[in-house]
Amino acid sequence: MDSWLPVPIDSDFSLQNLPYGVFSTDTDPTPRIGVAVGDHVLDLKVLTREQVFKDINFDDSTLQEKTLNAYAGLGQHVHSQIRKKLQELLRDNTQLGHVLRDNHDLRQKCLVSIQSAIMHLPVAVGDFTDFFVGLHHANNCAEFLKPGADITQVLPSFWDIPSGFHGRSSSVVVSGTPIHRPKGQYREGGKAVSGTSRNLDFEVEFGVVIGQPNQMGEAVPVDQAEGHIFGFVLLNDWSARDFQKWEPSAPFTCKNFGTSISPWIVPFEALEPFRVSPIKVDRPLPDYLMQKETKSIFEVPIRAILEVDHTRYAVAECNTKFMVFSFAQMIAHHTRGGCPLRPGDIMGTGTMSGPTKAEEGCFLELSRYGEQPYEMSAEGSSGERIRRTYLEDGDIVEFAAQIRTKDGLGNVGFGICRGEVLPAN
Amino acid sequence: MDSWLPVPIDSDFSLQNLPYGVFSTDTDPTPRIGVAVGDHVLDLKVLTREQVFKDINFDDSTLQEKTLNAYAGLGQHVHSQIRKKLQELLRDNTQLGHVLRDNHDLRQKCLVSIQSAIMHLPVAVGDFTDFFVGLHHANNCAEFLKPGADITQVLPSFWDIPSGFHGRSSSVVVSGTPIHRPKGQYREGGKAVSGTSRNLDFEVEFGVVIGQPNQMGEAVPVDQAEGHIFGFVLLNDWSARDFQKWEPSAPFTCKNFGTSISPWIVPFEALEPFRVSPIKVDRPLPDYLMQKETKSIFEVPIRAILEVDHTRYAVAECNTKFMVFSFAQMIAHHTRGGCPLRPGDIMGTGTMSGPTKAEEGCFLELSRYGEQPYEMSAEGSSGERIRRTYLEDGDIVEFAAQIRTKDGLGNVGFGICRGEVLPAN
Repeated sequence: MDSWLPVPIDSDFSLQNLPYGVFSTDTDPTPRIGVAVGDHVLDLKVLTREQVFKDINFDDSTLQEKTLNAYAGLGQHVHSQIRKKLQELLRDNTQLGHVLRDNHDLRQKCLVSIQSAIMHLPVAVGDFTDFFVGLHHANNCAEFLKPGADITQVLPSFWDIPSGFHGRSSSVVVSGTPIHRPKGQYREGGKAVSGTSRNLDFEVEFGVVIGQPNQMGEAVPVDQAEGHIFGFVLLNDWSARDFQKWEPSAPFTCKNFGTSISPWIVPFEALEPFRVSPIKVDRPLPDYLMQKETKSIFEVPIRAILEVDHTRYAVAECNTKFMVFSFAQMIAHHTRGGCPLRPGDIMGTGTMSGPTKAEEGCFLELSRYGEQPYEMSAEGSSGERIRRTYLEDGDIVEFAAQIRTKDGLGNVGFGICRGEVLPAN
Repeated sequence: MDSWLPVPIDSDFSLQNLPYGVFSTDTDPTPRIGVAVGDHVLDLKVLTREQVFKDINFDDSTLQEKTLNAYAGLGQHVHSQIRKKLQELLRDNTQLGHVLRDNHDLRQKCLVSIQSAIMHLPVAVGDFTDFFVGLHHANNCAEFLKPGADITQVLPSFWDIPSGFHGRSSSVVVSGTPIHRPKGQYREGGKAVSGTSRNLDFEVEFGVVIGQPNQMGEAVPVDQAEGHIFGFVLLNDWSARDFQKWEPSAPFTCKNFGTSISPWIVPFEALEPFRVSPIKVDRPLPDYLMQKETKSIFEVPIRAILEVDHTRYAVAECNTKFMVFSFAQMIAHHTRGGCPLRPGDIMGTGTMSGPTKAEEGCFLELSRYGEQPYEMSAEGSSGERIRRTYLEDGDIVEFAAQIRTKDGLGNVGFGICRGEVLPAN
């Protein structure tokens, strides 16, 4: 799908993608909904007011709001029509050339350079749930807790239950928001100590944003669960490992100080061509997790970069193909007892590590629990190297994910998920 | 403080109380903010529009909204002035008798019989956090997990950290909302089984509703933390014990199907006269938890009733005086790493059991982990008895709490927190 609007060959934002975000500009500071295309953001509030979507039957006030929650809640049948319309407007050989391509005034009003777009949190997050469904991360954690063990020896339900816990929604922030190193409690010499975390870590995660809600008391059947997904984001689940070790059971202060997400929500349909099967898809499962779709997960390579003093070091190349449960299974499990999901809720996968060292998605794994500093090389040919056990103040962590296709379908990417570590307050 | 408005001697709602809620009526279905007094609800939206609060410097649009979030966020200096004004309006020997007592038209507009008030969730809950700070509940749970153990053997950080985990905000519901028995996973004969919970339980908890927010990255000092409390509610943290045993670490599907709260939020100031010291107040603690106020918790007796076929059985008499950390300490810990609290956030205490059998606040404890059916007597003189290990379909669980004062200050109560168990969907 080529566009009359230039889409650079390495852009995240082809016509196959069309991710949603909320942006403002210096000249118009009101947050509004847009879609990324190449080096531009297309202002959907303007397009809506210009009646561009008038032949689609939906509540178009949802595209004029300051968050995507209401629009996400309309469900995929609406998102699909809007997406198709946008592709028709933007395609090279469009039948609808007169609407946008040939309308200079409207182009002026609705196309913003992506460099000038200030990105906001795209949804008001009602609830954030973090899962733990990455096989290699789980086994590495098990090894940490019980040397020699695999995950089922530490967590017997690992293959039966999409393990998850409730996270903190108030501290989910958009890429670019700095994160203060947290204070809290850890244990030293058997005693509780209050202080600043010395083991601050990132976690490479993948997330879904919920669209269509379910009512309280109503479980979502696994084969309908994909219909409740609005789209996907990259997610950095910042973690204080020293607090985590001393904290009772579930992560609490070790994680609730900040969670970063990418500003662009990649629509569900954009990832359809990138389906793969999860690991051990044919294992026995309870009925409510038996999904007909076998290619139930998506293969998204996620790259983690550490930026120190303006030099960028390659940290890890993770991948979402190591999930042992699909998002549909997570949704089915989450709602099994009737827990309501609301538009804008986010679910993360847990760390998406692969089987080799260079595929591990957090310093806990990369530095073997802080015992072996991990060495990283600078991008390019400078040959600079740096070592880290955990994050230092001033470090910037950046995730990017781009699925490049060779068949001309167009790249699908997420923009970046970036955050700087500031000293403790 | 006597009122010209009749306040029955056994009413929860004296002038010392004046709890906030959100109500509607059959004749006016718009949810609005009110305050309970005796057998009436005083409509604050009407009073605000009538300029009754015009000499108080605050954003009075907050009292015309459909939830209490914005008003809660104004902080205690505003709540205190509004409360004083309401007491002046309602007192027997009021200087302001002409405003309401002697104004028949305004009384007609702003006083609603409490029987005709339909109560709504008083706040949109941004985040719900559940703590585990009840001493006797903790020790009973430890005994369950490891016979003969006290809590520090199971959870070494118990006396150092106000143990907490993030809960689910989307399923927090107002008293009166029925709860469907959840489906989920449990383990039988070593194998994972999918089915309906056989071990459905209630938990007698006390909760705070957050008022004044804190910014992300800014910890709330413990001696300022009480200033972030808007008020207090009763809270039933419904729990599926069979799911809980098989679920990884933190409670997830075992609790996220429903949490009930009382409809009335008792303001912070109303509980001031009922301060007591927590257990072991003088133990060593990290600096950020060292609270100057030693009477840092409140003594609130909470009564649990089981209603079966219209007969009411006394289940337990719990009390909040067994907390080992205060709400101020919970807030200081929760925000220590910079986690932002927002107006309307709720924090629960965990089960508020006392040291004797009749003071245990859930069936897990009362039936000794489901092994010894617990016998309860009907209220009154019928002599009827009933036995339960866990809840059955059709059971109604009701909590009430009334602090009766002998010095004429007036009762402070919460109304009821009630919910019926419906069969699984």
